[in-house]
Amino acid sequence: MAQVTLLDSRSDVKVLDCTIRDGGLINSHLFDDEVVRGVYHACVEGGVDYMEVGYKGDKKIFARNKFGDWKFSDEDSIRRIVGDNPTDLKLSVMADAEKTDYRTDILPREQSVIDLIRVATYIHQIPTAINMIKDAKDKGYEVCVNLMAISIVKDKELLEALEIFSQSEAETIVIVDSFGTLMGEHIRDLAKKYLKAARATGKEVGFHGHNNLQLGFSNTLEAMFAGVTRLDATIFGMGRGAGNCPLELLISFIKNPKYQLRPILKCIEDHFLKLRTEMEWGYMIPYLVTAHLNRHPSAAIEWLDSPERDQFVKFYDKLNEA
Amino acid sequence: MAQVTLLDSRSDVKVLDCTIRDGGLINSHLFDDEVVRGVYHACVEGGVDYMEVGYKGDKKIFARNKFGDWKFSDEDSIRRIVGDNPTDLKLSVMADAEKTDYRTDILPREQSVIDLIRVATYIHQIPTAINMIKDAKDKGYEVCVNLMAISIVKDKELLEALEIFSQSEAETIVIVDSFGTLMGEHIRDLAKKYLKAARATGKEVGFHGHNNLQLGFSNTLEAMFAGVTRLDATIFGMGRGAGNCPLELLISFIKNPKYQLRPILKCIEDHFLKLRTEMEWGYMIPYLVTAHLNRHPSAAIEWLDSPERDQFVKFYDKLNEA
Repeated sequence: MAQVTLLDSRSDVKVLDCTIRDGGLINSHLFDDEVVRGVYHACVEGGVDYMEVGYKGDKKIFARNKFGDWKFSDEDSIRRIVGDNPTDLKLSVMADAEKTDYRTDILPREQSVIDLIRVATYIHQIPTAINMIKDAKDKGYEVCVNLMAISIVKDKELLEALEIFSQSEAETIVIVDSFGTLMGEHIRDLAKKYLKAARATGKEVGFHGHNNLQLGFSNTLEAMFAGVTRLDATIFGMGRGAGNCPLELLISFIKNPKYQLRPILKCIEDHFLKLRTEMEWGYMIPYLVTAHLNRHPSAAIEWLDSPERDQFVKFYDKLNEA
Repeated sequence: MAQVTLLDSRSDVKVLDCTIRDGGLINSHLFDDEVVRGVYHACVEGGVDYMEVGYKGDKKIFARNKFGDWKFSDEDSIRRIVGDNPTDLKLSVMADAEKTDYRTDILPREQSVIDLIRVATYIHQIPTAINMIKDAKDKGYEVCVNLMAISIVKDKELLEALEIFSQSEAETIVIVDSFGTLMGEHIRDLAKKYLKAARATGKEVGFHGHNNLQLGFSNTLEAMFAGVTRLDATIFGMGRGAGNCPLELLISFIKNPKYQLRPILKCIEDHFLKLRTEMEWGYMIPYLVTAHLNRHPSAAIEWLDSPERDQFVKFYDKLNEA
């Protein structure tokens, strides 16, 4: 690989916006169409490569009336926003292992406006994930696999998982920092392992960061400099808990002229300042505490929903005792 | 230098809290004593090495009644908070070149509770700064020099400045990211240059980051891994504009057992949640815009004080035209 400099345009890098998908975890996927349309147009005008609109949740598991459309991302819902998507922006959905009725709910590619299926899996669900990857590939989609919660996966198991993914039909394997605990050192180390496995069979590696330690953006850059070429980000950093790598920071950094900052700023101005008053995300002390102790941020999310939310020391003591 | 790992306790690293000093730039240095005392006790109990209480502003330049005590940091003001400071925490003040009547206002060390004088200078003020460094050293203080706005200083001039500082009486030379524009690549490069000059005459190098690009914490770690041993941070990241590297993140990362997270969390809970409703700091879109265009964040601070504060695209267009 050639030396990468700050002025390199990185034409090998592709950016995936997952604002509505990850942000949907805060508000049960209940977005006004106007907001989803705003994000779609910002992505198109900003030169973003992929937009992930939501999950393919199994309606036998998740009650249709308890969630917004983007928990299910039905074809009709997506087309209501994008029509036939006559643009260069590709569309993506996330399919969770064991929570997606993939055989039924993922249509043959030619009947769908979706381009990419991202299969998300915990390590113990890998056999199911492999079936889902094959199903999506057979139906004609681009396929990506996201292995979650890797900060509590043992090295040996991770290497086994990567070997399995490298033999799968997925074109991309994504490093996912579910707990928001990864730091630069970890990213460099993980990128090396993922790239070794992925390149052996001609695949790409992606990165999905979180901002629990205010490292969402820096870790994404670290991954890019280490050779990772598929980068996740969200507008204004919106996402569950501490949120994600902000799209506006990422595309203002990447020098590829196809990326335009202005439409993203417009979208923040038009929609996200208001959303920020209705939904909560971003760095908060409880997220530092869970990340510091390598716990899932769900404990922090619960605490922040309780009347004790501002009692940081009590939360710290409680987790330290547990 | 030995290989540094994530589990190294980094006993060579010292942390300087500059919450009240840098935060004072937001509120004209008007803090209640209770807050300053809260920060002082948090630093003592948290094992922080230095606390910077404020500036040594020249009363002939700055009207005494227009600013709070921490613009001037008179001996009486400091002793009101810390008494004779019978603790391991050292105290620091910042003395701006050309804005400090240093001959008069900096007392001989034996008459003062201050331990460290940090001389802040722009590149064109270096001759004055050198006089101030000598004056402080002659009076018996530890001395540090902070060269500001280096993202617009040419390489050749920077090397000349470092050569001058390396021959000065200052024990520490601080890399200061005034514009909040520096990224990991820059930090590694600057650390190499500063360390080369500093080590030649037995000095240490420090780092003072800002959070305009959400890189305050990651840049501080980057500096530490590159060999920088004096690190600035502020509680809850409070500081002018986008704020600074959060102290709670930094000491939760450094493994040295002398640092304690709990007292810092207590201080945030007791004082900073309330302060955050009275004062504004942290990552906001206009800071991304100024950093992206390598401008001083003052343009963003002004914009955020105007009725147009949320019109990000207008601000972006305006700076792009200028």
